[in-house]
Order: sequence, then structure tokens, then C-alpha cells
Amino acid sequence: MSLLRHIHACNTYRPERFLPLYFGGERVGYVRRDNAEVLRRFPRVIEVGADALRILPRDDGAAVTTALDGVVEALVADGLISKWRDEVFAITPRWGEPPLFTLDRGAVSFFGVRAYGVHLNGYRRIRDRTWLWIGRRNPVKVVAPGKLDNMVAGGIGGGLGALATLVKEAGEEASVPASLIAKAHAASAVTYKMEVPQGLRDDVLFVYDLETPDDFVPRNTDGEIVEFMLVEAREALARVGDTDDFKFNVNLILIDFAIRHGLVTPEQPEFLQLLAGLRAGGP
Amino acid sequence: MSLLRHIHACNTYRPERFLPLYFGGERVGYVRRDNAEVLRRFPRVIEVGADALRILPRDDGAAVTTALDGVVEALVADGLISKWRDEVFAITPRWGEPPLFTLDRGAVSFFGVRAYGVHLNGYRRIRDRTWLWIGRRNPVKVVAPGKLDNMVAGGIGGGLGALATLVKEAGEEASVPASLIAKAHAASAVTYKMEVPQGLRDDVLFVYDLETPDDFVPRNTDGEIVEFMLVEAREALARVGDTDDFKFNVNLILIDFAIRHGLVTPEQPEFLQLLAGLRAGGP
Repeated sequence: MSLLRHIHACNTYRPERFLPLYFGGERVGYVRRDNAEVLRRFPRVIEVGADALRILPRDDGAAVTTALDGVVEALVADGLISKWRDEVFAITPRWGEPPLFTLDRGAVSFFGVRAYGVHLNGYRRIRDRTWLWIGRRNPVKVVAPGKLDNMVAGGIGGGLGALATLVKEAGEEASVPASLIAKAHAASAVTYKMEVPQGLRDDVLFVYDLETPDDFVPRNTDGEIVEFMLVEAREALARVGDTDDFKFNVNLILIDFAIRHGLVTPEQPEFLQLLAGLRAGGP
Repeated sequence: MSLLRHIHACNTYRPERFLPLYFGGERVGYVRRDNAEVLRRFPRVIEVGADALRILPRDDGAAVTTALDGVVEALVADGLISKWRDEVFAITPRWGEPPLFTLDRGAVSFFGVRAYGVHLNGYRRIRDRTWLWIGRRNPVKVVAPGKLDNMVAGGIGGGLGALATLVKEAGEEASVPASLIAKAHAASAVTYKMEVPQGLRDDVLFVYDLETPDDFVPRNTDGEIVEFMLVEAREALARVGDTDDFKFNVNLILIDFAIRHGLVTPEQPEFLQLLAGLRAGGP
């Protein structure tokens, strides 16, 4: 059984293949060198230098958003990226700072800007053992079709905070009532930098835990999840080690859960590497 | 309130002031440059080069231990280090690997070898709130006299594993019976590299959580802790932020606890820096 391989699979970023993307004095993304060449077509929006790319300044964030949206439309027209149902992500240099501009979710990897999401471990304690609510993703999804997933997970879009995103997704994906999701608590975060065909995923996933009561069964309403099952946490962890049944980043969320709940212990030689690896994408 | 300052206070290692210490092909420590000069007196045990120090090979680990113990005795005689009641630490290149040799605990910082310890958060849930058992260290202790501490904490000496150390220390420091400590679970680890007058602390602290029952009150038997109190976790965290009442590294253990139990949340801008900072000493 190898848990570390999932951490390696999510941390494939090779810096030499990318150039930093700046806005003002702040780095906001990493653009793969071949993608940077493509962006030379938009000199009024992005300056492509030998060592870095710069988004040119405008009057305000809205003007930057509009200018970048023009670039995104052109890239979509050329088939280089796909628009993501017009869902936008707020771009900040660092978590917790005010957004500089927004970007269509479909362009996030192309520009290698940091994306934030929330994952919820829904679990029960039955006869002194921990059981996890595991969902199976709809086979028609673009990303990781048919793979196993957390009870709730979703990207933090423009405008919503982490907790507000969790509450919204918990309602849509698993019919968790507001009174129950209020008992969820923040517990961790997982970060990684992963090369993908479009560019780079620079992801931060905020992790929440929720012990669900006996009478609660998750029920999906938005078509993202086709079934939920209750799996003993030890069994889920063994499946993480032995298979690729879970969505790539959900493996990391479950390793993090297993460490925090005593299912991976210091007696395992890779304990410290796992702990560090779960935050290998940096703060 | 600043939590990050405690992480900075524990991560003061400046690599340029140290030289790596090797045994065979493996780095096992970091020796401050002035301490390296002192070690030139022992050319039959340690080779001091311009860029590194090397412990010379012997027939077996026991012979290395004996040779190093001679160096330690000489350093003690010169007042450069103090022997630590003959408590020895097992030295490995990485956690989980077999020990190469052992070293007196009093010499650990001088050689900058990695030291491992265990910390236990003993806590109770009372009326939907979390309360922590906090100990006050004996004012006669050499390290952090009179400071506040976890319910149980101790170094992992030669021979004992992490869990075995926890069980032993829990009995001595807080009279936790074997049946209760069996319910503790591993939950995290904190790592840091801190310059100290003798050299470097390269510490790994394995963190355990234990929810204690209503009828349990910790009672110290080895004189290390002079009183125990039950403090609401939020209040303990506020005290971490506002004061230096806790032992330097216990601040990190409590920040880690607070993150895992939802008392520090992603809404706080320093959330990701705290999470990364708790493992700044590396895997």
C-alpha cells in the first residue's frame, strides 16, 4: 500500500517549464512557456517578457476583468480552453486579501492562478469505529468522471467565502440542512501544484469535518453525485492505498483525515513525509 | 493577537551559521561553526572539514556511541554542555529507520541532531465547548521553568517508540491509566529548527489527542508538573496569542489543536501560513 504516490501525483509542477505572471508588484499565476507564446497575441492586455508575464494596469479591477475576458474569449474560440459555464474565480495574490480581478474558471489552469476549494468529510462513529460518507461522481462529469469523492466538495467562486461555499455546496450536493452544516468545523487545508494539459493547478483545499447524526443520509440534488455510501474509514484508506478509485485530490483529503483521526500513526515511517506532502503546494 | 510570532520564534535556524554533520553517507546533524572549531580537538572521532563534519566509521554502532561519549565527557568537563542525567537519544538519519548510534540528551543541541518527542492534548467536551487540561511546569526545571504545558509531554529516548513513550509519560506526568491512554489517538506532528545557546534544536513533536472522561483528573507523580487546570480551549488560544505564558513549543501544539478543532478557521488570513509554519522544520 502506498499513500505517498498520491501526493507525488498531485505535485508534478516543474518550475522551469513556467514563467511567473505578475499584476502590479504581485505574482498571481504561473504560465507554461508554450502558453506564454500564445499570449503574445494580446500585447494590449498582457506583456510577455523573457522571464515573466505582466498583466497591464487598468483604471480598476473591473477593467482588468473585462480585458482578460476578451483574451479568454479568443482562447475559447481557438479551442485552447473551454469556458466553465461562466463561473468566475476571484484572483488575489494571497488568501484573505481583497480580489484584484476575476477570471473565468475555465481559464484558471491556463494562467496558473491559485484556486481555492472546500472539501467536507462527513463521518459517523458506530461502535467505536469511524465511517465516512463517500460519494460517486456522475460519469458524465468532465473532471474525474465516475470517481469516488468526499460527501461535499466545491470550488470557491468569486464573492463567496470558504464557509459560505461549504454551506451552499452541502445543500446542493448532499442536502445537508443549515442546522447540521453549522456543526461542521474547519480542520485542515491541503495544497498542491499539479501540471495539467491546460497548464497548472495551484490548488488550496480547505478541509472540514462533520459528524453526522444517525438519522441523516446525504441525498444529491444537483446531479454531481450519483450515489452515496457509508464506508469504514480504515477501508476507505486501504482503498486509497491500493487503487485509484478516488478522484486524484480526494486521496489527499482522506490521508489528511486519516492522520488527524489516528488511522495513520507515527509508527508508519512515511508519517512525516505524508504530513509535509499534504501542504507541498506551499502556504 | 498574533499566533504566527510563536512559529517564527521556533524557526530561527540560519543555515549559514552551521555545517552539516555526516555519518556514512547520511546527514545526521548540524553543528554551529564555533562548535565545529571546538570539535577539532577530537580528530580520531570527528573529522572537521571546511564544508562539513564527519563522524569517523567504527566497527559498529556501539563503538561509535562509545567514541562520541568520550567527546561528550570532554565537552561536559569543559562546561560546554551538561550531561542530561544519562538519558540517551537514538540517532537515525530519518524517522522510522534503525538507529545508527545513541547520544546523551545533553549533547543533542550541540550536534544539532534531530530529536523526537510526544505531546498529548488532554481535553473534555462540556456543553458543546472544548476544554483543555493545562499543566504548570515545575519552577525548578531547567527548560521553561514555571511555564504552562500540555497535559503530557516528553522526549522519545533511545529504544522506546512514539506510542510507548506516550504511555510511559502519561503514567508518570498525569497518572493516566493504561486503559485511558489506549483511547488517545495520533493526530499530527509539529516540526521546527530553532537556534539555542548550545547549538540547534531540530525537533519533531508527535501530537496526540485524548478526550478524558468526567471522572478523570490528571495528577502528577514525577515532580515535572506542579498543578493542572481545565481551561476552555478558546481561552487557552487567546492566551497563546496574547502572552508568553506557555512553553515556547507548546504554543505550536495548541495552534495545531486549535486548527484541527475549528478554533482557527480559513476566514483568518494567516490560516495557510500557520498550517505550513507548524511543519516548517521539514519532514
